[in-house]
Amino acid sequence: MRDEMPQPDWPDLAGRLNGRRHVLPVRVYFEDTDAGGIVYHASYIRWFERGRSDFLRLLGLHHTAMMAAGPEGEGMIFVVRRITVDYLKPARLDDVLEIITEPGQTGVSSLTLVQEAVRAGTTICRAEVVCVLISGKGKPLRLKSALPPALAAFFDAAQG
Amino acid sequence: MRDEMPQPDWPDLAGRLNGRRHVLPVRVYFEDTDAGGIVYHASYIRWFERGRSDFLRLLGLHHTAMMAAGPEGEGMIFVVRRITVDYLKPARLDDVLEIITEPGQTGVSSLTLVQEAVRAGTTICRAEVVCVLISGKGKPLRLKSALPPALAAFFDAAQG
Amino acid sequence: MRDEMPQPDWPDLAGRLNGRRHVLPVRVYFEDTDAGGIVYHASYIRWFERGRSDFLRLLGLHHTAMMAAGPEGEGMIFVVRRITVDYLKPARLDDVLEIITEPGQTGVSSLTLVQEAVRAGTTICRAEVVCVLISGKGKPLRLKSALPPALAAFFDAAQG
Amino acid sequence: MRDEMPQPDWPDLAGRLNGRRHVLPVRVYFEDTDAGGIVYHASYIRWFERGRSDFLRLLGLHHTAMMAAGPEGEGMIFVVRRITVDYLKPARLDDVLEIITEPGQTGVSSLTLVQEAVRAGTTICRAEVVCVLISGKGKPLRLKSALPPALAAFFDAAQG
Repeated sequence: MRDEMPQPDWPDLAGRLNGRRHVLPVRVYFEDTDAGGIVYHASYIRWFERGRSDFLRLLGLHHTAMMAAGPEGEGMIFVVRRITVDYLKPARLDDVLEIITEPGQTGVSSLTLVQEAVRAGTTICRAEVVCVLISGKGKPLRLKSALPPALAAFFDAAQG
Repeated sequence: MRDEMPQPDWPDLAGRLNGRRHVLPVRVYFEDTDAGGIVYHASYIRWFERGRSDFLRLLGLHHTAMMAAGPEGEGMIFVVRRITVDYLKPARLDDVLEIITEPGQTGVSSLTLVQEAVRAGTTICRAEVVCVLISGKGKPLRLKSALPPALAAFFDAAQG
Repeated sequence: MRDEMPQPDWPDLAGRLNGRRHVLPVRVYFEDTDAGGIVYHASYIRWFERGRSDFLRLLGLHHTAMMAAGPEGEGMIFVVRRITVDYLKPARLDDVLEIITEPGQTGVSSLTLVQEAVRAGTTICRAEVVCVLISGKGKPLRLKSALPPALAAFFDAAQG
Repeated sequence: MRDEMPQPDWPDLAGRLNGRRHVLPVRVYFEDTDAGGIVYHASYIRWFERGRSDFLRLLGLHHTAMMAAGPEGEGMIFVVRRITVDYLKPARLDDVLEIITEPGQTGVSSLTLVQEAVRAGTTICRAEVVCVLISGKGKPLRLKSALPPALAAFFDAAQG
């Protein structure tokens, strides 16, 4: 499931993976703000999902490939089971934020990701996201058997 | 495909149909505004889609039913082919807008809807939306044969 | 700050308040779903914000009025400080959900709201939202002195 | 109003400007799709706004700077007056699209931008967007006097 199509034109489009730490830059556009003059609180939820998607992408897990894989070809997908978000400081139009994603604890079928939105070294927003790997029919899948071995080991090692 | 589940608890949730004219009220929430202090321009596009969905719903066309109908059970769906939007006045947080939807011209497979966002009698935003009825495989379908006869006649009569 | 403009045309637009419990119906439109075929997880965050806004609205607290009130006329606003969301079941296009909002614990400047998205009696998603009342300049305000006395008492009584 | 803060870490975050043509890559995330399995039609409107914002940004016009500039310091802002969008082909989850922005006709206070969403050389969606430069109080401003001379000339030359 490795990314076969190189994108030399836009090398950073999916952010960068440094060891266990994934970084995706996002710009604050009008769509992300509200009449309070700051970033709307649900916008961070969208950015964190982009971060998780690109983290998995750089690890070789594409959504579209996953949706065609899984046991009996019924597909598999990570769904959010629980999310906790702390809003620490406001962000504003034109700001550049870095969305940091790092793997935390893993369970049999679940993976917790710790995510932050950081502006110039300051954490603006922080989230803990519990994701569960399920089949296309909604059945939880074991990370160890459903994911490529190297990936399962990668997530597992994060707990140490 | 008539709506079988009455919703007596929230009678106006899908708006109201008066003759050919459908009216759906929407409130402006924080999510709909931007840092300019007014409604973000793409919010109207979402509201107009709600208006079209509920207009079809009150005519007996549910999305979920349509997605299971169509020739050979592959489903059918109206997709937007072209949209033209005129932004006339700004709307603001807490405003109540009425989304008006009326059928305009029909083609063999297409239906043009004229839509407005109105605040206390004043048109804030106006759109013309060309929708095409396609099958689940993306093939254009003839309105006259794919839609229930009464509905095909309803849209056809709108042109007079 | 009571709602002076009655809206007889759309009586339920801001939902209903039964004692301490506010109920707002929402319909699932295309905008709320994603390619997984179910409701996108951030959509609930938007709906919960609508629920909180209309809960406050029916209690007489309009955003626009609040933004012009507060000490020295600099305005006041409830901002989300922390949100925890549990995703229990998927919701789908055309579903009708009821967004339930109830006051929980209050602090000096904070108010916790417990919110649920319920479909036909089944809880789909549940959230706990900690809101802080701040001035236009970002300073936390005491609920007891900044809010109308009846409201401060209303929230305070919720803790018992 | 030139961009004073270089961002060497993410050189392409605001896309690239080649002559009169601005290119911004966007990835299709779950947030951009709907239950039809394709990109939701309003998502293009958001992407085109990002393209316009970054086009202006690379020309030296930041929103935040503009909102503090203008005659008598009341700020100025480009607002969308009219948008026409043609949806030509569907786009899907994980697709990479390039948002192309080019200046078209200018009026006394207005600027028309021609925008496209392109996937691997194929135009997916095309828009014509009429923007008007207004002051913070909503008064139309003359491009020639309100914009820096080089920029006014840049837009003006686009008409030839």
